[in-house]
Amino acid sequence: MSQKEKYAVGVDLGGTNIKVGIVSHDGKIINKISLDTRADEGPNIVINQIKKGIYALLKNNKLLIQGIGIGSPGTVSTKKGTVENPPNLPGWGKVNLGKIINKEFDIKTKVENDANAAAIGEMIFGAGKNLDSFVMVTLGTGVGGGIILNRKLFKGEFGAAGEIGHITIDVNGQHCNCGSYGCIETFLGNQYIIKRVQEELPKNKTSKIWELINQDLNLVTPKIIQQALLTNDSYAKDIVHSLGGYLGAGLASVANCLDIGKFIIGGGVAGFGPPLILSTQETISHRVLKPLGKRIKVISAKLKNDAGIKGASALAFYK
Amino acid sequence: MSQKEKYAVGVDLGGTNIKVGIVSHDGKIINKISLDTRADEGPNIVINQIKKGIYALLKNNKLLIQGIGIGSPGTVSTKKGTVENPPNLPGWGKVNLGKIINKEFDIKTKVENDANAAAIGEMIFGAGKNLDSFVMVTLGTGVGGGIILNRKLFKGEFGAAGEIGHITIDVNGQHCNCGSYGCIETFLGNQYIIKRVQEELPKNKTSKIWELINQDLNLVTPKIIQQALLTNDSYAKDIVHSLGGYLGAGLASVANCLDIGKFIIGGGVAGFGPPLILSTQETISHRVLKPLGKRIKVISAKLKNDAGIKGASALAFYK
Repeated sequence: MSQKEKYAVGVDLGGTNIKVGIVSHDGKIINKISLDTRADEGPNIVINQIKKGIYALLKNNKLLIQGIGIGSPGTVSTKKGTVENPPNLPGWGKVNLGKIINKEFDIKTKVENDANAAAIGEMIFGAGKNLDSFVMVTLGTGVGGGIILNRKLFKGEFGAAGEIGHITIDVNGQHCNCGSYGCIETFLGNQYIIKRVQEELPKNKTSKIWELINQDLNLVTPKIIQQALLTNDSYAKDIVHSLGGYLGAGLASVANCLDIGKFIIGGGVAGFGPPLILSTQETISHRVLKPLGKRIKVISAKLKNDAGIKGASALAFYK
Repeated sequence: MSQKEKYAVGVDLGGTNIKVGIVSHDGKIINKISLDTRADEGPNIVINQIKKGIYALLKNNKLLIQGIGIGSPGTVSTKKGTVENPPNLPGWGKVNLGKIINKEFDIKTKVENDANAAAIGEMIFGAGKNLDSFVMVTLGTGVGGGIILNRKLFKGEFGAAGEIGHITIDVNGQHCNCGSYGCIETFLGNQYIIKRVQEELPKNKTSKIWELINQDLNLVTPKIIQQALLTNDSYAKDIVHSLGGYLGAGLASVANCLDIGKFIIGGGVAGFGPPLILSTQETISHRVLKPLGKRIKVISAKLKNDAGIKGASALAFYK
């Protein structure tokens, strides 16, 4: 089998959907399927849905599959393959998902936290292909992170390293879902951005956002802010600029702590594009210790559609 | 030569004094000397002072010296042995201190940032002897740090990792010497503590501190606060409790980022003792992500007197 004939199955386990795909070693999706997670029905049903998805893809498959990778929310022990208390998947406790899937299909299976899978995906297929070390940040409902140091996922002492979203930038700030205060996530998480805009918008009635939501504050979403940004709306620009300032302040702490200067930003909110990337890069460069300043580079994630499937499949390609 | 007969020279290069000692493999100082750094006279004079100190110790020495370790301020490249722009040592630029000392004495020489040397010292001789991984924090004029991961100094991509003092905890906080804002150092650095107490004390005239300084605010020092603390002074207790809160908030970010749960606190301000340690531990435990909470442990550094010499000598014992 030549290098070019390698394929893997990637499973993107989310709270709403399970996305499964066959991915080639160079990151192309050959085939994919999406199923309801049925999270409310508990772990057995969810695991059955995962199996169903993999069976559907493998049914008429002729390609040689070298492994299955699963990107999962929650605390994951890669060594044991266990998933612990994934948020949005009620009733899980601790489940040995790796063992279950490996046993079912007799294919080598790796499980990783979804943000770590995203980092490995960018390293193998994406914007991190030519980087030795970088920090991956995923901006969505939550703010996740994964650290690549010298082409290896940095796991810390017990495998839970890289929780970038829960770095405090305001010691007396807002309460965070995690129990702490003023975490990056309380500035950049979807719900927090929406809440902020809902509060500020009545004082910014000339903003394009106001028009896009038909003056109904319930319709504020990051997508809407993005649309306004594309029309050069000054309030939308201000928001995104300030979000980059907050993210950059937190990432400067990460850079000072880890001595890593490259950052890849992915996830939905990363759709704010260059204005967010630039503001983040400027802030980190100004805030880090002088010798690090020149090395700071913030770039957009390259895996966009099906990033979850690709990241998960990359686990099988990553040694 | 048996394990018990190993000795090393440790050089603690400070802005005011250079302390040199011969240290046994189990951390006992056999002999030591202190010289003026003569920092104002530039690098050549300072290097001569270092040589003079080592020569003085080696003169009548019969012990087998297996290496020289130097703990230096500034950015240190351990591989190359270079010291770059050490604060308080004017005119240095970049100096290959390791090579110079190695050439002079023909003894294997290792140079490390002083906070990293402190971490290695605690690992080899001190409170980190039985810990796989921990974060060392040195509280003094500045706030330094060193990260030990699986019994190795964690260096990051280019060797400058562990700058714990420059983790932001208040994005809009005070300007820090490093150029950023609201770093841990702007709460815990000596000068910042003194300034804070000078500002607050006029509103706390019943405090024992007020009496200890004879109402002369210029006399406020961490030592004075420590003395007041020993008399159970409630204002001194409040300060130290809040310092632990700030330090803990920053270290919770470090724990979430690195997945390391043990912290060793050293340096002068660590003299606040158990009240500081306890407040720091409580804060980290409350702020970190749930699965990490149970693993948090904050302890005092064990190397007190001559910690600088011992930490530097440990570089020679550390592989």
